[in-house]
Amino acid sequence: MADTIVSSATREVVIGFDRPFCVIGERINPTGRKLLAAEMTVGDYSRVESDARAQVEAGANMLDVNAGIPLTDEPRILAETIQLVQSITDVPLSIDSSIVEALERGLSVYKGKALVNSVTGEEERLEMVLPLIKKYGAAVVAISNDETGISEDPDVRYEVAKKIVERAADYGIPRADVVVDPLVMPVGALNQAGVAAMRLIRRLRDELGVNTTCGASNISFGLPNRHALNAAFLSMAIGSGMTSAIMNPLHAEEMQGVMGANVMMGHDPECRRWIKKFREPAADGQEAQGARGGRERRRRRA
Amino acid sequence: MADTIVSSATREVVIGFDRPFCVIGERINPTGRKLLAAEMTVGDYSRVESDARAQVEAGANMLDVNAGIPLTDEPRILAETIQLVQSITDVPLSIDSSIVEALERGLSVYKGKALVNSVTGEEERLEMVLPLIKKYGAAVVAISNDETGISEDPDVRYEVAKKIVERAADYGIPRADVVVDPLVMPVGALNQAGVAAMRLIRRLRDELGVNTTCGASNISFGLPNRHALNAAFLSMAIGSGMTSAIMNPLHAEEMQGVMGANVMMGHDPECRRWIKKFREPAADGQEAQGARGGRERRRRRA
Repeated sequence: MADTIVSSATREVVIGFDRPFCVIGERINPTGRKLLAAEMTVGDYSRVESDARAQVEAGANMLDVNAGIPLTDEPRILAETIQLVQSITDVPLSIDSSIVEALERGLSVYKGKALVNSVTGEEERLEMVLPLIKKYGAAVVAISNDETGISEDPDVRYEVAKKIVERAADYGIPRADVVVDPLVMPVGALNQAGVAAMRLIRRLRDELGVNTTCGASNISFGLPNRHALNAAFLSMAIGSGMTSAIMNPLHAEEMQGVMGANVMMGHDPECRRWIKKFREPAADGQEAQGARGGRERRRRRA
Repeated sequence: MADTIVSSATREVVIGFDRPFCVIGERINPTGRKLLAAEMTVGDYSRVESDARAQVEAGANMLDVNAGIPLTDEPRILAETIQLVQSITDVPLSIDSSIVEALERGLSVYKGKALVNSVTGEEERLEMVLPLIKKYGAAVVAISNDETGISEDPDVRYEVAKKIVERAADYGIPRADVVVDPLVMPVGALNQAGVAAMRLIRRLRDELGVNTTCGASNISFGLPNRHALNAAFLSMAIGSGMTSAIMNPLHAEEMQGVMGANVMMGHDPECRRWIKKFREPAADGQEAQGARGGRERRRRRA
């Protein structure tokens, strides 16, 4: 049973099989957000601040921070963004960049134990990123692709993940600090994408014993009513053992899918979180009559 | 792999591991519906007719028909209701009664191969119901409780289901014609109800090789925002191998959970059903941009 412990200066979050699902807010990312990119480029972090507050308010347990803006000083902007976000929220952060120098700058200013997003199975990436993870005592997202690209065969992706976990161990990084991203494909383009993701997540949990994460909305690219499809995917992936996801906590349907799955997994004691969030006026009467209703229904069917 | 084949006079429905989930509409049931009970008692089946049409319209693959009204001639009312419903819809029916004489009357007028709801592991029920199933060549819902009641231990419920399947075989009823109801408990009263249901459904599929069904809304009794919780449960139960449920197809959230799970299981080829139901105005642009978006997202993360 792997417990991945990440932290800010003042708060610890544990990602684990026996824990409520960890929601990693994805909003602080200029990719595809022209206005945010323009603001971050000139040092205006007002939208970063409102996005950070809104996501934590909506239930994010961690925040992913990305400053990938072409033709800018990404290392500096990422470091400034991290410092800003850590000054206004206490959730642990995921430091998200494909540029190793940016990851290092981010790690150098980060207070606590960060999650680094990400390393792949590519030799060059392993050799550049893993030493940083070890140096700063961070945790890392391991994306299950390598020089050969992203295999459509979940067994191949499993082997890539296994290789990354083993290479991390060579650098003295415990398996508990490696969170595998199985790479969720759009089911609209690949009919078996959902089945493959669930099977891989189950194997990563049962055989490799690692926590998992993913960019949840990938599954629904190109399809209508994406929120409902993302919600079904999240609930099913959690049922298969997925322990975190990089997602938009401002979307109510997805969050209901996650919170409902926490209830189904027995990770919401006495359904307190669910009831607190969705309690209805007493007039509804469901809560008071629930237990009796359950008996009625069973008597009727049995 | 068990394929449970049920039929009306003109349509066949297959419940199976490799098939889209089978939605059995629960509305034609006077339990807790005073007005419907009063109308059925005096032979007014107008509401039965509208309920039947509405559920099929909403996507029900089968309809459960129950005429359990105290102090009435349930066998006659059930038979009349079945004949009425079969005269206006072509979906196969689930004949639902705790009174054996009513089941027999219903079977005697039913056109096609019905699903009988239900038999339990109680000796008396087994001896009364199984011969009827054999006589009429029907399929049967096997509820996993017995004289000792409903065990909270899913392993005990598994053994009861196994006993029913074996007893059915003694009567010449193939395992494919036994659909097991693992008995879903309210998670608000029993924190492990979801986990227990998913584990039992998985065992019933992998070890006993039978199809499963349940009264899906039981899971959420006593809790607020029941539709979202039912949807999460349905998606996760389908991911665990559940192949049908007795539910209300008029509830959009539950149906989205089921349709989304069909997509995730690879049981909605090219997502045709999902797209047909939820296609948005072209202005949305998601469908056109979907594939490209998928590549973008992967490029960004990898």
